[in-house]
Amino acid sequence: MNWPSHGSNPQYLYEAMGLALPKQYIDFSANINPLGPPPALKEKWPDFFHEINVYPDPFATQLKNMIAKSEQTPSESILIGNGGAELITLLARMLSGKKVVIVQPTFSEYEKACRAYKCEIHYHQLVEPNFELNLVDLRTSLMDADALFLCNPNNPTGIHYPTSTIISIIEECEKRNCQVILDEAFFDFLIEYDSFVPYIKKFSNLIIIRSLTKMFSIPGIRLGYLIAQPAIVSELNTLQSHWSTNTIALLAGELCLQNESFITETQDFIFNERKRLFAFFKQEEFVVTSSNVNFYILQDPLLKDQLPLFEFLLHRGIIPRHTFNFPGLEGRWLRFAIKGSEENNQLMEVLAKWGHHH
Amino acid sequence: MNWPSHGSNPQYLYEAMGLALPKQYIDFSANINPLGPPPALKEKWPDFFHEINVYPDPFATQLKNMIAKSEQTPSESILIGNGGAELITLLARMLSGKKVVIVQPTFSEYEKACRAYKCEIHYHQLVEPNFELNLVDLRTSLMDADALFLCNPNNPTGIHYPTSTIISIIEECEKRNCQVILDEAFFDFLIEYDSFVPYIKKFSNLIIIRSLTKMFSIPGIRLGYLIAQPAIVSELNTLQSHWSTNTIALLAGELCLQNESFITETQDFIFNERKRLFAFFKQEEFVVTSSNVNFYILQDPLLKDQLPLFEFLLHRGIIPRHTFNFPGLEGRWLRFAIKGSEENNQLMEVLAKWGHHH
Repeated sequence: MNWPSHGSNPQYLYEAMGLALPKQYIDFSANINPLGPPPALKEKWPDFFHEINVYPDPFATQLKNMIAKSEQTPSESILIGNGGAELITLLARMLSGKKVVIVQPTFSEYEKACRAYKCEIHYHQLVEPNFELNLVDLRTSLMDADALFLCNPNNPTGIHYPTSTIISIIEECEKRNCQVILDEAFFDFLIEYDSFVPYIKKFSNLIIIRSLTKMFSIPGIRLGYLIAQPAIVSELNTLQSHWSTNTIALLAGELCLQNESFITETQDFIFNERKRLFAFFKQEEFVVTSSNVNFYILQDPLLKDQLPLFEFLLHRGIIPRHTFNFPGLEGRWLRFAIKGSEENNQLMEVLAKWGHHH
Repeated sequence: MNWPSHGSNPQYLYEAMGLALPKQYIDFSANINPLGPPPALKEKWPDFFHEINVYPDPFATQLKNMIAKSEQTPSESILIGNGGAELITLLARMLSGKKVVIVQPTFSEYEKACRAYKCEIHYHQLVEPNFELNLVDLRTSLMDADALFLCNPNNPTGIHYPTSTIISIIEECEKRNCQVILDEAFFDFLIEYDSFVPYIKKFSNLIIIRSLTKMFSIPGIRLGYLIAQPAIVSELNTLQSHWSTNTIALLAGELCLQNESFITETQDFIFNERKRLFAFFKQEEFVVTSSNVNFYILQDPLLKDQLPLFEFLLHRGIIPRHTFNFPGLEGRWLRFAIKGSEENNQLMEVLAKWGHHH
């Protein structure tokens, strides 16, 4: 089967499975904040029209300065990008031909981009169902590696690795001249989070990627940023195409980042919904990962391959993300975003029926 | 002086020159349709908000099909991009390390992108004031070239090369295994235009780039496309980052391409304004290129370097595009977009004063 490589755009999933897209469906396959976009963005949207006839600021000066201030890092350490995916592609180009280690299971774009740029790709495989990360096991995988891709909190498991583990990995990699690409696309969904940005100054091998599209529900307009030492930022910037980040994304970013209460409100909402969902899953004997964010992977432990459950859900207009292209999951799990309360209720209703049906 | 590499964003130009940006100014430095964006886009803009929380269709199926239909070419021959600049960067990556010839003076991104990807860059220099292109002269420049960058109608001169010349170049290049990258970013401003799209089928070395940002005044949201044989499209697509073209650009593109009357209305308007401006320039003894589109380069023939005229205009809030980074122009010309009638009047008023002042 030719599975789509990502969630969202469910028409391609139904097409691959030879099914008709139902008229009514709930898309749990994209990890987007169900409370967003922020109301302030909706309010300002009409004004943005007057900016589309001007080229974007190619240096993104205003947004860069805002992030520099809030992250207490020099603006020369920041690169604005056309979504996290562009930043990953730029890194793959920088690493072209080199040996990269990817901590799996994880976001499939690291591998796809590194493959396109002819990197030598190795996996460091974390083991289900706990997907525990530790330096001792990782050390052997790091042999001669030029770069390590690590997503934290991890997509698709939702697991947040301990700060001390991450720091020990960065230190170990520094000794080995290995870059650490720490993808923090979902960091702002964590209620407790220790920032790694202060370590950028100390560790020349640390590169942090952030996304604004998940928290602020703006994947359609593409916006992400990267923090690293200025030499790396400058190298990546040379490879980037001019006017890469569009004006709407820049304006939306400036607006969203001022909206701190929206972030805390989201964190609380997700925390409560997750608690409610996970209590139900426990009761119904579904297994889920100990996610700290707005998505998780789930399995019916009575099934090895979850395809029957996947099909059961798709027929009922519930669209999870398949895991066939996640090494170490290979269809034994399904990923779900945490959505609004009503939608989560519907998910639980259908899953409860699966119990009886099964 | 550290000149900005492009027009638009005039704050960087004034900063480089140590001048304060005036409160009121007219920016002639970006070649954008003064009649746009189309009214239909303004009308639909509020609806686009409801699409920003969904990932863009990574295959841009709908827009690609529309272009395929109107250009009568298979959709496998089309690549949608995050503005023409991204498509140029992708081509530079594909040509990484190879020998490229750039017909100068022209858009500076070809050279910038090819330099970033370590191509061997050669110029084929057209000579002022007529900038005539012919195969006989070009032939010697083509020696061992892997690719030729040719912009038609050319930016910054506005000159439209004869169809027969272009075809003879494509044929000659095919014999030499040399790709021809024909950038048609401004083709839709031409009243008379012979499409090269039908030649894609015949010539595997032909790659056409188009932009939607100029005609439809949407440089802020980034949208362009490329037409070539499917093998080239597929290679470039692999190098492209996922979700590269944002949802707003896709929706705007679908809407704009249906708006044929807007294009013809624009062509007529530009034709009339150009006629009016060029009559004035002749009378006032300014020299301009025989542009067929919505911009032109101009010089006061009494000056070698146009810096005094450039400064005179900037002080009066008239912002042309400098030509210091166009090989073969080096500041001996200034580029102006054709703007609305009132703005063109103001340009003529200020230029008339220059005559007396001078």
